[in-house]
Amino acid sequence: MPTRRELANVLRVLAMDAVQQANSGHPGAPMGMADIAEVLWREFLKHNPANPLWWDRDRFILSNGHASMLLYGLLHLTGYPLGMEEIKHFRQLGSRTPGHPEHDPPIGIETTTGPLGQGLANAVGFALAETILAAQFNRPQFPIVDHYTWVFAGDGCMMEGVSHEACSLAGTLKLGKLIVFYDSNGISIDGEVQGWFADDTAKRFEAYGWHVQRIDGMDDAAIARAIRAAQAESTRPSLIDCKTIIGWGAPTKAGTAATHGEALGVEEVAGARKKLEWSLPPFEIPAELRSAWNHADAGRAAEARWQELFGRYRNAHPALAAEFERRMRGELPASWPDSVRAAIAAGQAVSASQATRQSSQAVLNLIGPAVPELFGGSADLTPSNNTLRKGAQPITPQDVEGNYLHYGVREFGMTAAMNGIALHGGLIPYGGTFLTFSDYARNAVRMAALMHQRVILVYTHDSVALGEDGPTHQPIEQLNSLRLIPNLTLWRPADATETAVAWCAAIEHSTGPSALILTRQGLTQQPRDAAALAGIARGGYVLLDCAGTPECLVIATGSEVGIAAEAVKQAQGAGRRVRLVSMPCTQRFDAQDAAYRESVLPAAVTARVAVEAGTTGLWWRYVGSGGRVIGIDHYGASGKGPEVMKKFGFTTQHVEQAINESIQGEHQ
Amino acid sequence: MPTRRELANVLRVLAMDAVQQANSGHPGAPMGMADIAEVLWREFLKHNPANPLWWDRDRFILSNGHASMLLYGLLHLTGYPLGMEEIKHFRQLGSRTPGHPEHDPPIGIETTTGPLGQGLANAVGFALAETILAAQFNRPQFPIVDHYTWVFAGDGCMMEGVSHEACSLAGTLKLGKLIVFYDSNGISIDGEVQGWFADDTAKRFEAYGWHVQRIDGMDDAAIARAIRAAQAESTRPSLIDCKTIIGWGAPTKAGTAATHGEALGVEEVAGARKKLEWSLPPFEIPAELRSAWNHADAGRAAEARWQELFGRYRNAHPALAAEFERRMRGELPASWPDSVRAAIAAGQAVSASQATRQSSQAVLNLIGPAVPELFGGSADLTPSNNTLRKGAQPITPQDVEGNYLHYGVREFGMTAAMNGIALHGGLIPYGGTFLTFSDYARNAVRMAALMHQRVILVYTHDSVALGEDGPTHQPIEQLNSLRLIPNLTLWRPADATETAVAWCAAIEHSTGPSALILTRQGLTQQPRDAAALAGIARGGYVLLDCAGTPECLVIATGSEVGIAAEAVKQAQGAGRRVRLVSMPCTQRFDAQDAAYRESVLPAAVTARVAVEAGTTGLWWRYVGSGGRVIGIDHYGASGKGPEVMKKFGFTTQHVEQAINESIQGEHQ
Repeated sequence: MPTRRELANVLRVLAMDAVQQANSGHPGAPMGMADIAEVLWREFLKHNPANPLWWDRDRFILSNGHASMLLYGLLHLTGYPLGMEEIKHFRQLGSRTPGHPEHDPPIGIETTTGPLGQGLANAVGFALAETILAAQFNRPQFPIVDHYTWVFAGDGCMMEGVSHEACSLAGTLKLGKLIVFYDSNGISIDGEVQGWFADDTAKRFEAYGWHVQRIDGMDDAAIARAIRAAQAESTRPSLIDCKTIIGWGAPTKAGTAATHGEALGVEEVAGARKKLEWSLPPFEIPAELRSAWNHADAGRAAEARWQELFGRYRNAHPALAAEFERRMRGELPASWPDSVRAAIAAGQAVSASQATRQSSQAVLNLIGPAVPELFGGSADLTPSNNTLRKGAQPITPQDVEGNYLHYGVREFGMTAAMNGIALHGGLIPYGGTFLTFSDYARNAVRMAALMHQRVILVYTHDSVALGEDGPTHQPIEQLNSLRLIPNLTLWRPADATETAVAWCAAIEHSTGPSALILTRQGLTQQPRDAAALAGIARGGYVLLDCAGTPECLVIATGSEVGIAAEAVKQAQGAGRRVRLVSMPCTQRFDAQDAAYRESVLPAAVTARVAVEAGTTGLWWRYVGSGGRVIGIDHYGASGKGPEVMKKFGFTTQHVEQAINESIQGEHQ
Repeated sequence: MPTRRELANVLRVLAMDAVQQANSGHPGAPMGMADIAEVLWREFLKHNPANPLWWDRDRFILSNGHASMLLYGLLHLTGYPLGMEEIKHFRQLGSRTPGHPEHDPPIGIETTTGPLGQGLANAVGFALAETILAAQFNRPQFPIVDHYTWVFAGDGCMMEGVSHEACSLAGTLKLGKLIVFYDSNGISIDGEVQGWFADDTAKRFEAYGWHVQRIDGMDDAAIARAIRAAQAESTRPSLIDCKTIIGWGAPTKAGTAATHGEALGVEEVAGARKKLEWSLPPFEIPAELRSAWNHADAGRAAEARWQELFGRYRNAHPALAAEFERRMRGELPASWPDSVRAAIAAGQAVSASQATRQSSQAVLNLIGPAVPELFGGSADLTPSNNTLRKGAQPITPQDVEGNYLHYGVREFGMTAAMNGIALHGGLIPYGGTFLTFSDYARNAVRMAALMHQRVILVYTHDSVALGEDGPTHQPIEQLNSLRLIPNLTLWRPADATETAVAWCAAIEHSTGPSALILTRQGLTQQPRDAAALAGIARGGYVLLDCAGTPECLVIATGSEVGIAAEAVKQAQGAGRRVRLVSMPCTQRFDAQDAAYRESVLPAAVTARVAVEAGTTGLWWRYVGSGGRVIGIDHYGASGKGPEVMKKFGFTTQHVEQAINESIQGEHQ
């Protein structure tokens, strides 16, 4: 029987050889954490390599994603469908082994990591989802949701602010099944961290209410003991602060930044082979070690035990079991089409002026009860974001059964945790903040988009019209800048009906995040015929038309649709042929076929005006070189909302003037 | 003589009345922190209301910026030029008293706050600047730089991740003259924080190595004692954890979220008048209280003492004094024009392929010694960002005299601290990270722009060409999305010469931040005639021209200029009349007069191709409706840089094809 150290050394050698072959990558962290990985994966982790999608598997998150070769090595060795050919093509185009792990459930990669700190924050979401689903679905004798979330995190993760946000929240919520291994090797890219990172991290986590242990992270017995103690602690998340040596095994570079982010070099690799007593050439692994690593049988047995439990659960609680399966499959309830019809009908029934943040809450009030997987929250702006629907139940440290979370003032942590919730499955997270503060969470929004996760971002107070809070709170560039994030679908509805359609589209959109951009101020409701109503979901449609070919096209979104509608009506009253296009979702509109787009925005009509209370930058694509854009390319001002809007030209008069100038320009 | 509580109540009444009059704002925090403010401002703060720009004043930062009325009240009462009329127009358009404090040195507002946590991170920068300048300029008997940085921060600031990044760094660097009052009132917008924020914040700060005290924040004697103890502690920053009651004085709403973010209401205000024993109508202050608050004489005397000291310093150390004055005035050295000439000449002398991150380091190596106020750093990517120039001296916890800081993996904290350094004066901060991770710091970049601060952001690894690190690290939307931030000047140089011009422009640009977008990979050097060389600083210029009117204009930036140049030369070789425009800075180009812009991009030429390895969104403005944009609107892939570039169409062949199609399109 090989020793634990010999088993760990397989990971070390694989990592250093794959990095050497790619001549690029990070050998240091895998070599330092190999012993921890060996103990965790061979002795504790509940998983079935033959079914990486098993719902009750433990989740393993490599927050220090640059240590990707450690994960690839583990997946390969324990029996996931990740062959040695993929390891040999580490970091190469087309491989399943990119430089940083990319969300790839069929081979056991739970989340994309690399942007530091976010894997840890994802993990808080995973653990939260487990806790909530356990509270919702487990029944006496039937712990069908009962798994751990394990995290590897490095000094970089611990320096990042998002680690504070997420771990403070995890401590408050007593997420006892979250266990984090902190790879405290004292080295980051710039060198020995003591010059810029002198925290007592263990103490910091104690301040968050975590269960904390300090161990030698290269002592297998200590690691196993610490894991058992962490598992025994059920009401606090656990930090295991592991002292390790980065690049351990490298004869001259171990313990230095030289092992962090580049190949060790031929000589050092040869030296490491000697030190690790490893005589085989790269990518060859002795059968005995392979066999000791293989988890196929144990994994199948583990899942079989759960399947047996779930079978009995299904007999005892058939409705609950069916609901659990539906939710874990990510399918909406059978009644969903009714919810959509009801939400849109209710939107159409609104006649009074209403802020779209209020319209949004009305949608939630209506559809929420029928979609129990909707899990809401806000970064401490609940009464402003209107994200708490009637009857929703906030979870608390004392009672985690619920469907709403007060995330605290933690936009980044919230969003990264929402990514983890979505990745876990069983819940559809939505969360609110002010549009401006999407800035704080921006890379987590990107990660949701990169991973194609159904995460719904509720961004209210969407323009300078928010008024007195002033320039720090008034979004300017955020609208267009969010539209630039690939695979994020952004909706900026103009009234209650568009808000209902946007919410339904966001909930149905299972392959990427959606952002709902909502006003603070009241908006006029726009009347629509059936064609216009059907057009909303296409992202852009004719809201007000004229007889004959338009002389001018006006395109507006959100709160500027009402302003533009008034201007168009006045211009029409003055004999102009003007069409108003409402464009709540440019991405959806862009995805329509050319014929539909041409029917809405005929190429022949080049007198065009776009109106949106945000930067003008992206609108030139829609209005063309000769067009006009009424937007705002500078910061706002503190004052009453209507006065601010007037000051910056978001008025009916200004739009009408632009329409007239636009038509005259064409006639010159 | 009025009691301290009576003096504090002036702040309470002013805040509640101004908010009531505006019917909008945040009375709770000012009413809770009034006692702390009274003790600090009347007994300890070193300042001269008659000269808010006095270099050695203490800096006061209201990180919980929503408590703006507290600051306005203090400035008004102590004698800054902020009249009662401004208080009466709190939050109104055109007032000096916007909803959140906006950087306004002539009335004593040191920084713009409101986005939570960032004021605290700015303060770390202020304190760092003080410490560094003291080390550089003070001499025995001449402590000419010797002031405190005081911060008010709330629960929101403490929940935000940036507070972790900044305060961990402050603890490591032993910033003993940074003193933070934590307004621990237990309330945030969503209610009692214990449901989402159960940290032991005092313990957390101890883990950062701070000096920590817990006091009753409404006990003036305790406050004064704590301040003295904090001042006595010179090698650790201080946190004074102050238990307070939000909205104290409001008879029924004190201690609740109802006082946080809205007017108290007429009845509650009337009740508060009774409770505070305040009989006067709004905005009237008894002469005795006014007089006790006025700091005019004491402030003048304080500055006079410093002026006397500085006069003697000038006699003893004339060169040093002149240098100090130059740097605090923000003027570049007399030798600066020589530095510019040398940098550009050196750029032109480069002939080999060079990554612009290397060109950037070469510029720093060359000009750094002559511009001692340049204060560099990196968020733990020093060897990748190439930000550490030859001969630069990193500061350490043991020795703060230097001109470089290893900020650790803290992009947001670094950027917000750089804002504080710039605001303090005397240093020009620059700091590096990967372009993708500008996302983490995004709102601090915005704040630099909003405050018009000379902060230089060095963003390397600027496209998918970075290669093997993969999609998490490959910027896509970041380039255009940074260009959308009003008042941020973005440079993406194409080679060593453009890099030199960009650096010089960034250093000279004293009214806003600049971002330098640099490659990881080597780039070909472009030959230029004198006109082209002079054109770089104009943001866009003709790099390669043809005889006669061009049939097609190609616009490229950064690493795509070399690719486009090859394509243009091939097209020219095939008889096409094609012009290549290099556009390192779209904002600079947009700011040129119409004649120049027309001379570079003649309106008559509508066959246009833009090439940039980023999203296409903003380029339609330059190529027009009929143009073509070669960009990337989806995520990248892990692989060798050149292979990735080829996969995504950034090739000479593809550009040449677009040129040909473009010209053919025009001829149809």
